[in-house]
Amino acid sequence: MDSSLPQPLAGAVSIDGARLWASLMELAEIGRTPKGGVCRLALSALDAQARRLVVAWGQAEGLRITVDAIGNIFMRRPGRDDSLLPVLTGSHIDTQPTGGKFDGNFGVLAGLEVVRSLNAHSIETEAPIEVVIWTNEEGSRFVPVMMGSGVFANAFSLESAYAARDAAGRSVQEELEAIGFRGSESPGHHPVGAYFEAHIEQGPVLEAAACTIGVVTGVLGLRWYDCTVVGMEAHAGPTPMAARQDALQVALPIMRSVVELALAHSPHGRGTVGSVQVFPNSRNVIPGSVTFSIDLRHAEPETLDAMEGALNRCIEEARRSSGLSITLKEVSAFPPSRFDPECVRLIEKASAKRGYPHMNVVSGAGHDAVYLARVAPAAMVFIPCKDGISHNEIEDARPEHLEAGCNVLLDAILARAGVSGPLR
Amino acid sequence: MDSSLPQPLAGAVSIDGARLWASLMELAEIGRTPKGGVCRLALSALDAQARRLVVAWGQAEGLRITVDAIGNIFMRRPGRDDSLLPVLTGSHIDTQPTGGKFDGNFGVLAGLEVVRSLNAHSIETEAPIEVVIWTNEEGSRFVPVMMGSGVFANAFSLESAYAARDAAGRSVQEELEAIGFRGSESPGHHPVGAYFEAHIEQGPVLEAAACTIGVVTGVLGLRWYDCTVVGMEAHAGPTPMAARQDALQVALPIMRSVVELALAHSPHGRGTVGSVQVFPNSRNVIPGSVTFSIDLRHAEPETLDAMEGALNRCIEEARRSSGLSITLKEVSAFPPSRFDPECVRLIEKASAKRGYPHMNVVSGAGHDAVYLARVAPAAMVFIPCKDGISHNEIEDARPEHLEAGCNVLLDAILARAGVSGPLR
Repeated sequence: MDSSLPQPLAGAVSIDGARLWASLMELAEIGRTPKGGVCRLALSALDAQARRLVVAWGQAEGLRITVDAIGNIFMRRPGRDDSLLPVLTGSHIDTQPTGGKFDGNFGVLAGLEVVRSLNAHSIETEAPIEVVIWTNEEGSRFVPVMMGSGVFANAFSLESAYAARDAAGRSVQEELEAIGFRGSESPGHHPVGAYFEAHIEQGPVLEAAACTIGVVTGVLGLRWYDCTVVGMEAHAGPTPMAARQDALQVALPIMRSVVELALAHSPHGRGTVGSVQVFPNSRNVIPGSVTFSIDLRHAEPETLDAMEGALNRCIEEARRSSGLSITLKEVSAFPPSRFDPECVRLIEKASAKRGYPHMNVVSGAGHDAVYLARVAPAAMVFIPCKDGISHNEIEDARPEHLEAGCNVLLDAILARAGVSGPLR
Repeated sequence: MDSSLPQPLAGAVSIDGARLWASLMELAEIGRTPKGGVCRLALSALDAQARRLVVAWGQAEGLRITVDAIGNIFMRRPGRDDSLLPVLTGSHIDTQPTGGKFDGNFGVLAGLEVVRSLNAHSIETEAPIEVVIWTNEEGSRFVPVMMGSGVFANAFSLESAYAARDAAGRSVQEELEAIGFRGSESPGHHPVGAYFEAHIEQGPVLEAAACTIGVVTGVLGLRWYDCTVVGMEAHAGPTPMAARQDALQVALPIMRSVVELALAHSPHGRGTVGSVQVFPNSRNVIPGSVTFSIDLRHAEPETLDAMEGALNRCIEEARRSSGLSITLKEVSAFPPSRFDPECVRLIEKASAKRGYPHMNVVSGAGHDAVYLARVAPAAMVFIPCKDGISHNEIEDARPEHLEAGCNVLLDAILARAGVSGPLR
């Protein structure tokens, strides 16, 4: 469908960066924290308030609103041929407890800004365009993460999502009803022609490379494990070194290997031990057991397999040399996802035509686009964020980068939806 | 004074192992836990009940009771020449929250059993003998540990000990008064000619060597530190390995070095990382900071200095290669203590005469005897405990070992106090 885009169009119409920025700042007032971040947990009263604001903005642009049973919101701008599959764009507006103004919000408001710009320029597209807000991407209050898009892509059932409860015991179903966003549409029965999502990078690569646009070719696969080493707690004083079964000391080389095997698979390998629990965790007691998390990521499933194999060999060696019990339990896994080459090419082409410094990147973090890619051609546009910091109240992004990302989104959507208005 | 002991005496009179065992079991009923251990925290109602029981046993043997201002209890059996400095023996009867029947209690009741045996055999000693119960050795409810003997030896002030509060906010002074054991005697103004303490080993060395008696020549010095590495928390996914400041990974070689430098100073070197706190301790966040404890022990102060030096070099190397901030803060320190050679020789001699398999050992854990050694000639007798396990409800010791340790204590006390009765 890309060929339907006349060459002169790219860059011929642009979005309004100031309007985008103003909307981002207005939305960030809802749940604003003293440090300038945002705390707007999924399905909270603040989430409802933010949803109503964005829906009102959509209605002001003439968009038709539908809500599905997991609370995903679709705001539709009709196409000239409204029977064509719609081009969807969006992200999420729930945040981490100590979240920023841009994570997710940028993708939703960039989609809205594309519509506002098309309206302002009276541009009609062949296919419809829909701006979507996915429910509970962050997973801070209810697990799993990416809940709305996950149910939409049938990665797990609506019933299991409904049953998830927060720390206070409230369920997703109760809270969806309480805030008035449990819709009637059956999730996944909503047609999608293609999906584009704009997002801040949440990492330092673009900033370090002085690139304005990251053309996201895919998302790293990840495997999460819990590793537990069981030794024997004993007094730190009377127990000679040779008589010890120190669980922490046996765990150390495994923790180190997690990073080493990621380094061995540069540049897309990632290895992190983020969480450590020592028992009994007392200054003068030799650790009796240690449990720690392992997070492995890579772009290729075969390499993830190889990394897991190397991890298991390291554990086997530790088991053999220490005689201690060591278990490795897989907690979660996402296969690597590769975005649709044609959608990716549209983003790359738009970046080039606009003259934005750009590079191909692989996302290290999961996004709603990962699930959407299971049901439709999909791709993502990244823009830099300051120092690569996200999920933090000091998360920041530059207005000119947000504007550039939104322009690339506009071009890609127009190319995919096809233009039938005055620009044709 | 050893020379005053006629050679035939050693082994000529023995303690009553069954009576010792029965008293240990009766005392263990006070605070007994469902798993067969004892929970009798310092200055609790249960501690008071146990103190009253032991005092009643002492009074039944004609002992004169005095209590000092920190609650240490002295039970005195007069000597033929009562102006001589008394030989003290004892330990503590407070326990860990999940303590056993023998830790501390053995030392107190072994002292009582020595007195009972002397009375039963109508043996008079030249110097007086006193059985002592030291307040709050464990430090589980009130810190510091070894509080009663520490105040006695003027290691810290009575006022600072009085001011210590438990988790519920109750002070040592309040609780001493509440249980009726705030005495009038000024701590440290109590004369001591010598001090002997019998104790379970709380480690695996004697059992492994099939020895009945450990002749304790001294106690390892210890140094406690907190080490903190500060990096930068970041997402485990989007952050490339090369861009990370992973505090945990920088901490790993330091944690390892703690054990390596103890191994380099065998057999008396000890190195333990017992406690680890990772921030924010989240599965998919690169650790931003890590704080961990370091426990170093050795019998020689110069070697402790060398171990600390090696630790600092390792930290300097980690600082240099990572660029991260790493701090090492000393939390506490005890110098190594060497027991009085003459007192140690009495214990060794008694073990040999009795034909008990014995060996010289250095205690890895602190005991009240460490403070007593600052004010008087002191030594300790160790006996094995099952699997070296202590501070645990499954702590166990064999009746024949308890009996043997008590016999050695008897012989050492008689040798030190001198005998003037029918055995002379």
